[in-house]
Amino acid sequence: MKVCTGASMSLDGFVSGPSETGFEHLFAWYGNGDVEVPTGNPEMTWRLTEASAKHQRAFSAELGALVVGRKLFDFTNGWGGMHPLEVPTVVLTHNPPTGYEDNKWFEFVTDGIGSAIARATELAGGKNVGLNSGRIASQALDAGLLDEVWIDLVPVLLGGGTPYFSDLGVKPVELEGPLMSVQGNRVTHLRYQVVKR
Amino acid sequence: MKVCTGASMSLDGFVSGPSETGFEHLFAWYGNGDVEVPTGNPEMTWRLTEASAKHQRAFSAELGALVVGRKLFDFTNGWGGMHPLEVPTVVLTHNPPTGYEDNKWFEFVTDGIGSAIARATELAGGKNVGLNSGRIASQALDAGLLDEVWIDLVPVLLGGGTPYFSDLGVKPVELEGPLMSVQGNRVTHLRYQVVKR
Repeated sequence: MKVCTGASMSLDGFVSGPSETGFEHLFAWYGNGDVEVPTGNPEMTWRLTEASAKHQRAFSAELGALVVGRKLFDFTNGWGGMHPLEVPTVVLTHNPPTGYEDNKWFEFVTDGIGSAIARATELAGGKNVGLNSGRIASQALDAGLLDEVWIDLVPVLLGGGTPYFSDLGVKPVELEGPLMSVQGNRVTHLRYQVVKR
Repeated sequence: MKVCTGASMSLDGFVSGPSETGFEHLFAWYGNGDVEVPTGNPEMTWRLTEASAKHQRAFSAELGALVVGRKLFDFTNGWGGMHPLEVPTVVLTHNPPTGYEDNKWFEFVTDGIGSAIARATELAGGKNVGLNSGRIASQALDAGLLDEVWIDLVPVLLGGGTPYFSDLGVKPVELEGPLMSVQGNRVTHLRYQVVKR
């Protein structure tokens, strides 16, 4: 069981361009291949290259639960009731929203990244815990709780926006790898291991 | 003949950490291998892995001239009289320094990136022109004069500092590639082509 984070990132380190732009570049690889990969959302089917599909299936097969931030949860409107990766999802938030009492996919944790990851680890049943959003991943890094960083490196310079990792308290952070490098269409899938301090 | 830029860059996009730190990480690959590669500076010999040495030799063999910024020129004190890559070097500056009248390696250009690259192209004799420093490369990108970006991607998060590409006027910038990906020790050598607008 590992705690992992992953994101599509521009060559200059951004997961979103200025004013929430650039997604047509960052997420192009989800739609520029021939292999249809359904998600938990019936309205969302990815079209990946064979290489990216294989990479994505490996990630999904090993994934048991997610920890996400409240901002992303709200931005996606709770993914319409279930995260597209179809795993239990722990939302880290100061104020749990109402209306999710009967929803079996989401749990809300209010007392910090350590508790959120601990709860997700229980829910994951031996599989990996994925962290979604750089802010959550940065908190986990600072707390020494992150094992791997998966980066889908996209050949574009966004020139500004939201960095993947920001406000790192303890830095620099050394990684090992890439443990793996897979070339898709307009994306290089890289996997790094965090060197434990 | 191509106009190229290259740098060692952290996974989060920095060529220098906060307050000019992090170089022990960014430049570790210049000293963590078994292959001795002499430079034009007798006091500086690189110790590269076989993979990095092969990559570096290919870059050097194709390089005919450099364009560098005044900041880097001053920071290195004119590399003691000659750039370690032993090629003619054009320094872009507002005020040419004195004391270099008899130096055959350096020329000083005051009227912009376009002139500097044009002069370096003449000096390069059909070989490539390399741009050293992200600021110079960013200006060339904005002017549509950059052909390739070589990145030595280092598995470390510096969490701040000097971004490779900053103050891009025209963005986003799409690249093609990587045209090449070579794995060294604590470095991945990547080469991208700029998509001409």
